[in-house]
Amino acid sequence: MDTRHVVIGIDIGGTTTSLGFVDRHGNVLAEATLATGRERAQDLVVRVVDAIFGLQRQLPQDFKLMGIGIGVPNANHTKGTVEYPVNLAWDEITDLAGLMRGHFQLPVAVTNDANAAAVGEMLFGAAQGLRDFIVITLGTGLGSGLVVNGQMVYGADGSAGELGHTVVDPEGRACACGKRGCLETYASASGICRTVLALLAERREPSPLRQLSADQLTSKGIADAALDGDVIALEAFERTGRILGMKLADAVAHTLPEAIFLFGGLAKAGDLILRPTRTHLEAFLFPPYRGRVQVLPSAVDQGSSAVLGAAALIWNELT
Amino acid sequence: MDTRHVVIGIDIGGTTTSLGFVDRHGNVLAEATLATGRERAQDLVVRVVDAIFGLQRQLPQDFKLMGIGIGVPNANHTKGTVEYPVNLAWDEITDLAGLMRGHFQLPVAVTNDANAAAVGEMLFGAAQGLRDFIVITLGTGLGSGLVVNGQMVYGADGSAGELGHTVVDPEGRACACGKRGCLETYASASGICRTVLALLAERREPSPLRQLSADQLTSKGIADAALDGDVIALEAFERTGRILGMKLADAVAHTLPEAIFLFGGLAKAGDLILRPTRTHLEAFLFPPYRGRVQVLPSAVDQGSSAVLGAAALIWNELT
Repeated sequence: MDTRHVVIGIDIGGTTTSLGFVDRHGNVLAEATLATGRERAQDLVVRVVDAIFGLQRQLPQDFKLMGIGIGVPNANHTKGTVEYPVNLAWDEITDLAGLMRGHFQLPVAVTNDANAAAVGEMLFGAAQGLRDFIVITLGTGLGSGLVVNGQMVYGADGSAGELGHTVVDPEGRACACGKRGCLETYASASGICRTVLALLAERREPSPLRQLSADQLTSKGIADAALDGDVIALEAFERTGRILGMKLADAVAHTLPEAIFLFGGLAKAGDLILRPTRTHLEAFLFPPYRGRVQVLPSAVDQGSSAVLGAAALIWNELT
Repeated sequence: MDTRHVVIGIDIGGTTTSLGFVDRHGNVLAEATLATGRERAQDLVVRVVDAIFGLQRQLPQDFKLMGIGIGVPNANHTKGTVEYPVNLAWDEITDLAGLMRGHFQLPVAVTNDANAAAVGEMLFGAAQGLRDFIVITLGTGLGSGLVVNGQMVYGADGSAGELGHTVVDPEGRACACGKRGCLETYASASGICRTVLALLAERREPSPLRQLSADQLTSKGIADAALDGDVIALEAFERTGRILGMKLADAVAHTLPEAIFLFGGLAKAGDLILRPTRTHLEAFLFPPYRGRVQVLPSAVDQGSSAVLGAAALIWNELT
């Protein structure tokens, strides 16, 4: 048996950090999860390195480690840094690639989770063979990864692709970024909860959602209500899909992708979100583009997707 | 003296077709202009070919023709076609590259005028050395050319970059494309005329613009009135810059360019349009992007810019 080439994929989130050894074909050979504490970056890195050594014992002897890919919020791919993270108790600017290279003399690539998801989709998912596509992550916020001419779009300084902060309504909902009316305040797991609250204020229909506090609402709960035929929940998906479709039509006007993949918590609602998104995307598209752009669910295993995406970063740069 | 390598740049517009011989450094060695008639594509091509032979006599003997670049509305770069042109009396789909290759056994590249302007800016203008930038053409409509990682963005089928048809207001102004509220109905030479009409309806201030019919209004006339201190004209530039700045902030969220270049008729208004565009772009930008993106006038000679851009297409593909 040949030496097996593997890379390490690491996904750092505000509450959980996942890591795994991944081969060229997207097989996760060993995986682990840590709680992300309110700790300094260097302390988390030390714990991650310990976990890596622990996982190595589960691997066959004959592997060769090729590099380390890291998905992390507020990452700058060009510099290898994390800058002004909102959900991590780190310094304003952390040289995360440098910290990791202090432990391993290997290529280290850092990018945000949505870009990692896009590279994962390109190497291991439904975007294999596509040269122009977009991945939208619908989690607490809305992340995006754009691929043009077969390459990730990192932009002039390594942090392009923030479709969550394009504007839907300049006088609209307050966004965590300080602006108003950003796309992610409408089209995300938290955005659809806000839309339900607005609908409960606006409409009179009875709904089981009236029994939940704002803090109790979840996109999963809204999806369940919609599947039960609740009109408020159904209308919330319709409005969310309309706004997402409208702004995805803008995205198509920029880079004309073959497909747009939806990923993350709210995307698990499946047709509830896909159908209105497709309908309104078509209506808002520049007419010559109509009928050409598919909106599809991600085909990367959502259980390991963050680790796969992070690992794909390195595989993509090695080829 | 060495043989001089030259390319032919051709810009086909609804009323005028310009062509010229251009060397590697962007020098226009000979140039001509034809009226574009209500004629078939093959008939226009025959007249263009005659004009090329005429211009050749003005060149030094020792030149070598390397290719032909064509800027034309509704062009598809990948296929070399012109599809459903609005302002040309051509068939629905014309293989323009093929028609031209019937006369010259040379590389022929076809793209729309805004993409040609972007390549021209990259090779001969202010975008030299930049890898990520956007050119916006503010003519009768709004065209755009995006460059990412040093490459033109043509998209999945060769016709990406239609920022003029991103949506400002889904219930807004009727657009020639059949949709409502497209950016070009606000931010273009015709858009600012519509904004003046709306302001004349809304406001009571006296203005010399009240003496002009809708058909008499021009962006040049509005710029002249603004320079004379007319409040309606000044407010029209403010509103135009606000909408343009807002949508350029969206564009930055997609590809994070180093600079955005404004080009074309309305861009000639200079600071009248640049200043409000810059102010509102900054306000609408995702905060981490603020202060990083320049909005600049094009630095390509506007007299020969269309021919230079078309020629640049070939020079870009030969390098």
